[in-house]
Amino acid sequence: MSRSILTLTTDFGSGSPYVAQIKGVILSIHPHAVLVDITHDIAPQDVRQGALVLEDVTPRFPESSIHVAVVDPGVGTDRRVLAAEIGRRYYIAPDNGLLGRLIGRDPDARVMALTKREYWLSAVSATFHGRDILAPVAAHLSLGTALEELGEAWDQPVQVSWPEAVVEKNRLQGEIIAIDTFGNLISNITQDLIAATRAPDAATVHCGGRTISGIVATYGQRPPGTPIALVGSSNRLEIAVVNGNAAVELRAQVGEAVSVILPS
Amino acid sequence: MSRSILTLTTDFGSGSPYVAQIKGVILSIHPHAVLVDITHDIAPQDVRQGALVLEDVTPRFPESSIHVAVVDPGVGTDRRVLAAEIGRRYYIAPDNGLLGRLIGRDPDARVMALTKREYWLSAVSATFHGRDILAPVAAHLSLGTALEELGEAWDQPVQVSWPEAVVEKNRLQGEIIAIDTFGNLISNITQDLIAATRAPDAATVHCGGRTISGIVATYGQRPPGTPIALVGSSNRLEIAVVNGNAAVELRAQVGEAVSVILPS
Amino acid sequence: MSRSILTLTTDFGSGSPYVAQIKGVILSIHPHAVLVDITHDIAPQDVRQGALVLEDVTPRFPESSIHVAVVDPGVGTDRRVLAAEIGRRYYIAPDNGLLGRLIGRDPDARVMALTKREYWLSAVSATFHGRDILAPVAAHLSLGTALEELGEAWDQPVQVSWPEAVVEKNRLQGEIIAIDTFGNLISNITQDLIAATRAPDAATVHCGGRTISGIVATYGQRPPGTPIALVGSSNRLEIAVVNGNAAVELRAQVGEAVSVILPS
Repeated sequence: MSRSILTLTTDFGSGSPYVAQIKGVILSIHPHAVLVDITHDIAPQDVRQGALVLEDVTPRFPESSIHVAVVDPGVGTDRRVLAAEIGRRYYIAPDNGLLGRLIGRDPDARVMALTKREYWLSAVSATFHGRDILAPVAAHLSLGTALEELGEAWDQPVQVSWPEAVVEKNRLQGEIIAIDTFGNLISNITQDLIAATRAPDAATVHCGGRTISGIVATYGQRPPGTPIALVGSSNRLEIAVVNGNAAVELRAQVGEAVSVILPS
Repeated sequence: MSRSILTLTTDFGSGSPYVAQIKGVILSIHPHAVLVDITHDIAPQDVRQGALVLEDVTPRFPESSIHVAVVDPGVGTDRRVLAAEIGRRYYIAPDNGLLGRLIGRDPDARVMALTKREYWLSAVSATFHGRDILAPVAAHLSLGTALEELGEAWDQPVQVSWPEAVVEKNRLQGEIIAIDTFGNLISNITQDLIAATRAPDAATVHCGGRTISGIVATYGQRPPGTPIALVGSSNRLEIAVVNGNAAVELRAQVGEAVSVILPS
Repeated sequence: MSRSILTLTTDFGSGSPYVAQIKGVILSIHPHAVLVDITHDIAPQDVRQGALVLEDVTPRFPESSIHVAVVDPGVGTDRRVLAAEIGRRYYIAPDNGLLGRLIGRDPDARVMALTKREYWLSAVSATFHGRDILAPVAAHLSLGTALEELGEAWDQPVQVSWPEAVVEKNRLQGEIIAIDTFGNLISNITQDLIAATRAPDAATVHCGGRTISGIVATYGQRPPGTPIALVGSSNRLEIAVVNGNAAVELRAQVGEAVSVILPS
């Protein structure tokens, strides 16, 4: 039954009627589909941010759930659209890097390029494949159509470049890759990298011209207004300001360097 | 079963708790109703924008689905509230023009003015009929109450004035009627008007002080940053900037003139 | 069956993927749960606003519905998390005042402090208890787990201070406690207080340097652009501008004084 849970991730903007058109198409094919919005506030055409959100959020959904992502600057060109089974969940997205990292991590991923027009709307516009191709394919998949029915196997999905943190002697060097709605600065330095170091309490974190002593476990360990470094709920090092907005107070943006200096 | 799909279109703003009050009322009467947000970001009291969204989006939903629209500057006055069956879908909205065009196009439309208080909440506020009248009526309709039970037939629904594109010799003259979340400028010049012309490739489009050569099929046909004209996913001529924001770059607003000059 | 309706109220921001993580966790435990967003636009860490929204909105939902509220500045400290049955509905929230007033009004409220880790996610982060504790507990409650199974009875829930209107001879003195998306200024002067006065038509309302004569029943009783006072849909005295935005035109904010002077 979980196959009838479908999520949507787009750059259409919260409140966009385009999202509702996608939902209407899905419900017209599968009236019992359960639709969940992941977010529609991906920055316009920011494939990397879309990929990051899919990576963080979709594993929280049940097995066999179906995840539709529409961040599609190449709509109307000859870019492929993919349907994939990755980590026991299904994904439908343009082949522009949205799924690249997820596919790369699962050796058992099955990836199809969509070619079977019988699962698309009969009229396909040049500018809105989310509604005309991805939505109906997702609905048919949720009704039980086999992945292999949807197109042809495809083994060269597009990868997006992604900044990876660098481990040096006594130092982890990374950058801010996202900013959440609280203004917390989320870096590409993962919990795994930090756990492999000795004594995170004694580390010094540098970001946005500030120096922060120690990596704390939670916001409550420092007084309001204090900049802190902690491992956030997505297992990444974050810079936050207790009860405040780090993005504003540190004037930091995506791409800002973050370094963790370990005691020698 | 599709009669249990109810959509909501309002000017309450995304995140407004007023929307949740409407949902609570519907679910209290029909706990199995499936609720879908079309948008809550209609500009405050902009009946025309609400009508446009209903027109574009609701035909994508299944037959027998129920569409509730609350853009209601006249709440608390003696304006009527309508329930209608139009194009095999149901609509509930104040009689202020939200449904005028949809009704006008369907000779078989059945329109009732709501009068039967037994389908309303027992306490009706003076300021929130969306919650106190429209929501419970929608819920009862979704449970199977016949349209005719809800009130009395009404054959003079309010019409809103609406700018229609004008066809002249060698020229289509229209205006921008909406701007989407990508900044695309959506005009009232329809696909039908353009298809009736010869050689759209050779047309010249004027908008916001810019001259655009040709009507292209999709964004990918021009380099990033180029202003283009194309027929968008709602079958209307749009002005866009490839990977950019036309509303910002052309400093255009709703009401801006658009003309298509055809080769003579 | 209504026990499977779960609502969410947070300060994560509309479009936050954190909300979707909570939904994924709930649906992984109870795939048939019906999820409804009340709002995610509570001002960051504004417990009072969260409490006000819960108070206004949740009684509109069916009996046995479950309401999860995550406005949680103390996450990661030793603050409790509560599950409660109040007024035949269920609530799950941090013990920081979100539920204080609701509990205080219902002598039959049953309140538990969550302690049973078997109903939490196996990995609990220090910063996102909404996902790791509140969401799975809500899902188990919706599946039929008894409230008493979730923890230990708790009889000292945190109260938040809350400005109450003061009744003086010939005068009601209150303040603005919320501003809605239309810019209407919502005060803490309730319908009950006003109904107890003689002749509200003859009252004079003072707010933001303006003097408004009479309390009207609805917007339509005055011309567009006029500031009015009326009892809004939440049974509180509101200051509005007909077809306009009172917050902008009166330059008023939460905390602004409102007084109603009655005829002597």
